[in-house]
Amino acid sequence: MPHLSQPLSKAMLTRFSKLGQKKYRDQEGLFIAEGLRTVRELIDSLPEPEMLVALIFDEGAYESMRWFSGFRGKIFRADRDAFARLAQTTNSQGVLGVFKKQVAERFVPGTRSLIVALDDVQDPGNVGTIIRTAAWFGADAVICGEGTADLYNAKAVRSSAGSIYAVRYHPVKDLAAELERLQGEGFMVAAASLDGQDYRSYGQWPERRILVIGNEANGIGQPVLDLADRLVLIPHAGERPNVESLNASVSAAILLAGLSFV
Amino acid sequence: MPHLSQPLSKAMLTRFSKLGQKKYRDQEGLFIAEGLRTVRELIDSLPEPEMLVALIFDEGAYESMRWFSGFRGKIFRADRDAFARLAQTTNSQGVLGVFKKQVAERFVPGTRSLIVALDDVQDPGNVGTIIRTAAWFGADAVICGEGTADLYNAKAVRSSAGSIYAVRYHPVKDLAAELERLQGEGFMVAAASLDGQDYRSYGQWPERRILVIGNEANGIGQPVLDLADRLVLIPHAGERPNVESLNASVSAAILLAGLSFV
Repeated sequence: MPHLSQPLSKAMLTRFSKLGQKKYRDQEGLFIAEGLRTVRELIDSLPEPEMLVALIFDEGAYESMRWFSGFRGKIFRADRDAFARLAQTTNSQGVLGVFKKQVAERFVPGTRSLIVALDDVQDPGNVGTIIRTAAWFGADAVICGEGTADLYNAKAVRSSAGSIYAVRYHPVKDLAAELERLQGEGFMVAAASLDGQDYRSYGQWPERRILVIGNEANGIGQPVLDLADRLVLIPHAGERPNVESLNASVSAAILLAGLSFV
Repeated sequence: MPHLSQPLSKAMLTRFSKLGQKKYRDQEGLFIAEGLRTVRELIDSLPEPEMLVALIFDEGAYESMRWFSGFRGKIFRADRDAFARLAQTTNSQGVLGVFKKQVAERFVPGTRSLIVALDDVQDPGNVGTIIRTAAWFGADAVICGEGTADLYNAKAVRSSAGSIYAVRYHPVKDLAAELERLQGEGFMVAAASLDGQDYRSYGQWPERRILVIGNEANGIGQPVLDLADRLVLIPHAGERPNVESLNASVSAAILLAGLSFV
């Protein structure tokens, strides 16, 4: 079906190849998703068709794929060198999509609302995985402070498995200030901490609650710990733990399961 | 402290650089861990000092590190090219360790025993993260079938965060056969499946239980599904899930938390 596609222009190549940097993603409101599975998951969850800007195939990969015929006019072929300039990971399998970022709207939480806040979570894989888990458990929003990895980083996009559009993503300058604002709206802030108390021991959770997950090595920063209503801990089994800690996205998952089911 | 270290010999370079391949890891009984944090976590959890075979520093990185002085005789300097031949990831930060794999012993489970079984889990990051979580929840062993990524792969080692020695790792040829054998010893087999039943609805779990986690895209294979005693599902919140599924290591974590606390 070569008639479906057109060659990628130099102008598009130049424009899209800058999307590896957050600065340009923010400026253009676009991001790149790489790899057949990731691209398809995103396409399956598109809120509107125009959120897909372009599908770009490596010349070699193009002929073997037939599923994209519905996207006439947005399909481009790139030669090997051009494709390599666009791909940020080694998992692109000759296909990548350029998508529009979520549109930032004023966030009005519901009466019953679960929010996840990320305080300096640095691994993009963790950020993407946490968004995916938050989507599964019906969270309304994921709020990120300044230090947290960008959700639109290629690795985070991959880990999010098509859930980019499923949860509101809300980066803020000052996480502590935003959490205090939400406390004023009746949210209880629960911070994951090794100094906390067994998360199962708290009994009732209010309908409006926020789970904060911290940095992979250092946990949650002091400003957020100081304002937290509850510090929650995932107890280990056995006399002493056989490992120092849990992965940040694993902690988030166990606590989200706990907070979403109560 | 240059007197603490010796240059890496050509023979060692040749030998260790093969450890990127599973075949040679199995043959030598050795594996490589990369990056300051990963190496230190493993050193902190060494069952015996001789499990550390060598600490290798990139010439440039060497001078800035002083914590390794207790390992006299096992410290080697490598020039940039040699170091690059050894490093399998981009996160090595100029330091890597060569370690001995766990010694395979006959596994005799306790009266109370939690086991994790991996059926064709292909992402090494998931395998390492699941081992880490299993260690936290006091699991006795992680059993892997043939298709599952090797725990001693550099990425899996990194994700395991020093828990390699904390849980018995037991790769088997035929996972279904091994699970049937364990059922004969009184183990209940719970298989994570989207066709399952809410994991919280099962009430009591026996003291001997096995949680099976399947392939990232296709779940658990038919032979294991056929023998499973219980199919367990993590319910999503809301009318319909905003995402298709959970990450394999996230599912493992939520279910392990559920099965270890009951």
